[in-house]
Amino acid sequence: MASYNPVNEAVIAELKKIVGEKYVWTTPEKMEPYSHDEVTDPKYVKMPEAVVLPANAAEIAEIIKLANRERIPVVPRGAGTGLASAAVPFKGGIVLSLERMNKILEIDTINMFMVVEPGVTTEAVQKAANAAGYLYAGDPCSGDSSFIGGNVATNAGGNKAVKYGTTRRQIYGLEIVTPEGEIVTLGGKCMKDSTGYSLVNLIIGSEGTLGVITKIYLKLMPLPKEQIDLLAVFPDLTTAIGVVPKIMAAGITPTCVEFMDNETIKCCEEFLREKQPHSDNGYYIIIKLEGENEEQLEEQAATIDELCSENGAMAVLVADPAKIWKARKAFAEADRARSLVFSMEDIVVPMSEIPKAVEQIAAIGRKHGVTMHCAGHAADGNIHVNILKDKMSDEEWNRVLPAVQEELYTLVYSLGGKLSGEHGIGYKRVKLLERFASPVEIKMMKAIKQALDPNLILNPGKVIDI
Amino acid sequence: MASYNPVNEAVIAELKKIVGEKYVWTTPEKMEPYSHDEVTDPKYVKMPEAVVLPANAAEIAEIIKLANRERIPVVPRGAGTGLASAAVPFKGGIVLSLERMNKILEIDTINMFMVVEPGVTTEAVQKAANAAGYLYAGDPCSGDSSFIGGNVATNAGGNKAVKYGTTRRQIYGLEIVTPEGEIVTLGGKCMKDSTGYSLVNLIIGSEGTLGVITKIYLKLMPLPKEQIDLLAVFPDLTTAIGVVPKIMAAGITPTCVEFMDNETIKCCEEFLREKQPHSDNGYYIIIKLEGENEEQLEEQAATIDELCSENGAMAVLVADPAKIWKARKAFAEADRARSLVFSMEDIVVPMSEIPKAVEQIAAIGRKHGVTMHCAGHAADGNIHVNILKDKMSDEEWNRVLPAVQEELYTLVYSLGGKLSGEHGIGYKRVKLLERFASPVEIKMMKAIKQALDPNLILNPGKVIDI
Repeated sequence: MASYNPVNEAVIAELKKIVGEKYVWTTPEKMEPYSHDEVTDPKYVKMPEAVVLPANAAEIAEIIKLANRERIPVVPRGAGTGLASAAVPFKGGIVLSLERMNKILEIDTINMFMVVEPGVTTEAVQKAANAAGYLYAGDPCSGDSSFIGGNVATNAGGNKAVKYGTTRRQIYGLEIVTPEGEIVTLGGKCMKDSTGYSLVNLIIGSEGTLGVITKIYLKLMPLPKEQIDLLAVFPDLTTAIGVVPKIMAAGITPTCVEFMDNETIKCCEEFLREKQPHSDNGYYIIIKLEGENEEQLEEQAATIDELCSENGAMAVLVADPAKIWKARKAFAEADRARSLVFSMEDIVVPMSEIPKAVEQIAAIGRKHGVTMHCAGHAADGNIHVNILKDKMSDEEWNRVLPAVQEELYTLVYSLGGKLSGEHGIGYKRVKLLERFASPVEIKMMKAIKQALDPNLILNPGKVIDI
Repeated sequence: MASYNPVNEAVIAELKKIVGEKYVWTTPEKMEPYSHDEVTDPKYVKMPEAVVLPANAAEIAEIIKLANRERIPVVPRGAGTGLASAAVPFKGGIVLSLERMNKILEIDTINMFMVVEPGVTTEAVQKAANAAGYLYAGDPCSGDSSFIGGNVATNAGGNKAVKYGTTRRQIYGLEIVTPEGEIVTLGGKCMKDSTGYSLVNLIIGSEGTLGVITKIYLKLMPLPKEQIDLLAVFPDLTTAIGVVPKIMAAGITPTCVEFMDNETIKCCEEFLREKQPHSDNGYYIIIKLEGENEEQLEEQAATIDELCSENGAMAVLVADPAKIWKARKAFAEADRARSLVFSMEDIVVPMSEIPKAVEQIAAIGRKHGVTMHCAGHAADGNIHVNILKDKMSDEEWNRVLPAVQEELYTLVYSLGGKLSGEHGIGYKRVKLLERFASPVEIKMMKAIKQALDPNLILNPGKVIDI
């Protein structure tokens, strides 16, 4: 276990010299927003010793060299919209906020690349791509506020991953500052690269533990001309989910295939004060089709309509995209409004195992007397399971939650699944990873971390704890 | 620099105990085919001390544990179709041929995954997928003989990478034997995974230096129903290549966009004794379009026809796919028939830089009085440059080749390019990587290698030399 030194006055003075006086914060009022992410449980809150806002990679390199010399943790942070407490300084030290590095540096329409700094919001990236006539295909639910750097650090997924893959697939190059304070560009605008180990892919999803991302080479795609949104309503979740493999097997690759259970629909309806169709007893599958050709989409929509109707749908509707996606994206906020403390799990299983997974998850909830809402990404097997504390005492919650998680992940791993589809391990799931991943895998991850960050300076205690 | 022990009689006896007497070879006749890959230069030949053919991961684990104990290199080997001498035992030791591990273990049509052993040929994978009604999208030119395990180890590219990406994008899980002889499954059939560092992506493209691949989870896709192959003929290479960004910018993503320069066309024509259209003075762009909908493909073909004609094409023809792809794939063999010794470079640059690259490559060839044939993957910037020895003396060749490479890669890196698009670094490009990659990148790769393979047993001297 590494031990660290506190951020003392001399270090603060050096930090101020590096980034300028006004970009080093040490008061509780200024630092409070940096003491947590979107995980609401109070045990995932920790005040930084200092918050530093660098302007560029050179400043970050200096900060990290200082931190190595003084043995102080550095925790890189995007917009703080994470769901795994990856950007919270549980071992103390400096929070390195990338919010000032918010420039779109280049839109290269010939090679179809966008080069951006990490502090640009995902939505700003998407809008800039659209304005230039292209698509940036990454689309996490938090896109209106999340930073693109955070998307890369967690390999964010989102609704469009069915068709376009997760953030990993949109990234061909990164500039990073290494855990020892060196600046290096990995990859770039080349569409193919077999030039040694894929360090780009190692950094993507490493949650700020192997490097600070300072520049990102994003791939753009042709902007689809047409889209159709469908809402299929089913009498129960198993029937609803059961139709998804049938759609995929028909050779259709929708952009999104989402599901919501009935409790979740009701919860979102109430939160948004907006009536949703068949919300009294329906379970939703929401599908977005995109493409170049209207006729082709209509053909696909007709096939989906037929498959859903044959497989027990109560209704298949052409949906108002604004309304239906607002409801889907309100999932986390609606649950938070009901129960400030809740645990959002992020399980992923092979697609075919979703019906079995959701059935058995419901049984786990009943057994432990806890409300669990399910929604998520049906076609790629990624289910968000919100476990609600509701009116439970802290004591009961701290007993019930681990018991539920133990059963949940035992189930998930028995189905060939994994701990996290898109939210990452962060701090919240370190012990669960240690419990459920193969010891060989854990050993490999620890060896890599120690090799690249010998002083264990960068975001220590996240992903793995050494 | 690690030092190794020879494979002595006692080690041979242990190997025979692990895999069975008849699967350990030590005679020069049996071992000769394992002393080189497709690189024809005699300096890339080295006889193994033993060739071992294991039946499964458990046997490989035992072999690797033995090798660690005895400090003997182990060189994993697929079909030997590599172009970077990655599977040749330059530091001596055991060649571990995966040819007996050649089973297709599962075709999961619901999740659209195929699970295979590493010794299945790429073509057998493709055919099995097709027979089940699906597409395996990996398609290196050597696919009729290369092993799928080798495709993963080099992150093989090939013709269809424009639309489907390289091998990396087809892989969601691997079983490997680690450099210390432990068996572990990384990833699996989950379509999303943010469960810690992406070890799957680190292993892909690591050329047998970080693990022996023993099982592969391949993604299948819907089989496209329609296809059209087009051949556009141009008066020179710059004009030919110049049209490619225009096609991509029109929102069309062909499955393949290949090019061949006139010398290459003539060389292939002669080799195959089959007349090609406009071969007297034409430069080719070969395009394959695939999709669900015939009309849409015809629309795209019409757009491409128009763009090519507007941009200087002498002719745009609907091509006979069998004939045109046979010519394209004969590139390496035709050059080998002309000049047994030649160096196939595998440069990759941002797509927009291809015209500049090919022009300046021609100038380098003229300056050094050496014939250089160019063909390759136009839309992803990956150009194969064959530097032919022809009748040069060995002495002259050994002087000219490094000089040409120095200028070539100085050019490539100045254009934002890289050493290898799809063939990998292997042994052939280790010094070039050390020369042209960032020292920080090299340091990171070496740190990872040492962390995962402390005795430097697995394929030492490849990718990086420690």
